[in-house]
Amino acid sequence: MEGITGNIATVGYGLATIGPGIGLGIVIGQTQIATARQPEVAGRLFTNMMIGAALIEVLGLLGLVAGLMFT
Amino acid sequence: MEGITGNIATVGYGLATIGPGIGLGIVIGQTQIATARQPEVAGRLFTNMMIGAALIEVLGLLGLVAGLMFT
Amino acid sequence: MEGITGNIATVGYGLATIGPGIGLGIVIGQTQIATARQPEVAGRLFTNMMIGAALIEVLGLLGLVAGLMFT
Amino acid sequence: MEGITGNIATVGYGLATIGPGIGLGIVIGQTQIATARQPEVAGRLFTNMMIGAALIEVLGLLGLVAGLMFT
Amino acid sequence: MEGITGNIATVGYGLATIGPGIGLGIVIGQTQIATARQPEVAGRLFTNMMIGAALIEVLGLLGLVAGLMFT
Repeated sequence: MEGITGNIATVGYGLATIGPGIGLGIVIGQTQIATARQPEVAGRLFTNMMIGAALIEVLGLLGLVAGLMFT
Repeated sequence: MEGITGNIATVGYGLATIGPGIGLGIVIGQTQIATARQPEVAGRLFTNMMIGAALIEVLGLLGLVAGLMFT
Repeated sequence: MEGITGNIATVGYGLATIGPGIGLGIVIGQTQIATARQPEVAGRLFTNMMIGAALIEVLGLLGLVAGLMFT
Repeated sequence: MEGITGNIATVGYGLATIGPGIGLGIVIGQTQIATARQPEVAGRLFTNMMIGAALIEVLGLLGLVAGLMFT
Repeated sequence: MEGITGNIATVGYGLATIGPGIGLGIVIGQTQIATARQPEVAGRLFTNMMIGAALIEVLGLLGLVAGLMFT
């Protein structure tokens, strides 16, 4: 048989990156604007950015885990 | 059997991260702007951010739970 | 048999670039605005940009890895 | 048999241009605004733009590679 | 047999114009705003616009190439 082959988990992972990809962009982009406005709190802003990025990134990476969990 | 294989729960999880991913980005990004504007309330802003992030993150993570609940 | 052929992993990869593509655009675009506003912190802004871009880019590139993982 | 024919990789590539297309637009558009605001850093802004554009463009071009990888 | 006929590559090309279409709009629109704000750098802004537009345009045009590559 031919036709479309493959595993739907690849689509699941692709969807799981849409929100986190945009979200990370907003977090890091606003960090840049905030850093330019108050360079003296750049360290704190960077810490917030990394904590926030980790919270968001994990949602995307779990898209791969979901593919392994649900087979 | 060939064709497309896999579990549709992976697509469900992927969709479940779109809103939370963007939402977390807005929350944390606005925290950065607010921290730069009033650095003296940075602690309170960080507390708010973590509470808010937890509320949003759980929506995404429940996408995995949904896959286990509905089989 | 004819009809539509191919591997659904190509659709998965395509979806996996939507969020990161937009997110990278926001990060780098805001870096430009921030650099113009405070040229004296351009170095720090560039460092933040590269760290942020790496966090986002990996989400997209894992879209290819997902196609290899889930077959 | 007739009906719809073709390779789903063409849809995958089409999806792979949505995010990078918008993202490149944001990057280059914000570069223009930033250049107009601080023409004296136009060189640095152009360098940032090209680095950023390369990071984004590759995500789209890999959409063609994905079609060759997953057959 | 009747029903829907045709090649899915036409849908792929259609999708391939969404992002680049919006992206080119952002680039050229922001160029106009920037040119009005600083007419004395209009030449540089035009150069940036053409380089940026070329980077985006190619993503859309490859949507036709994809239809020829993947049959």
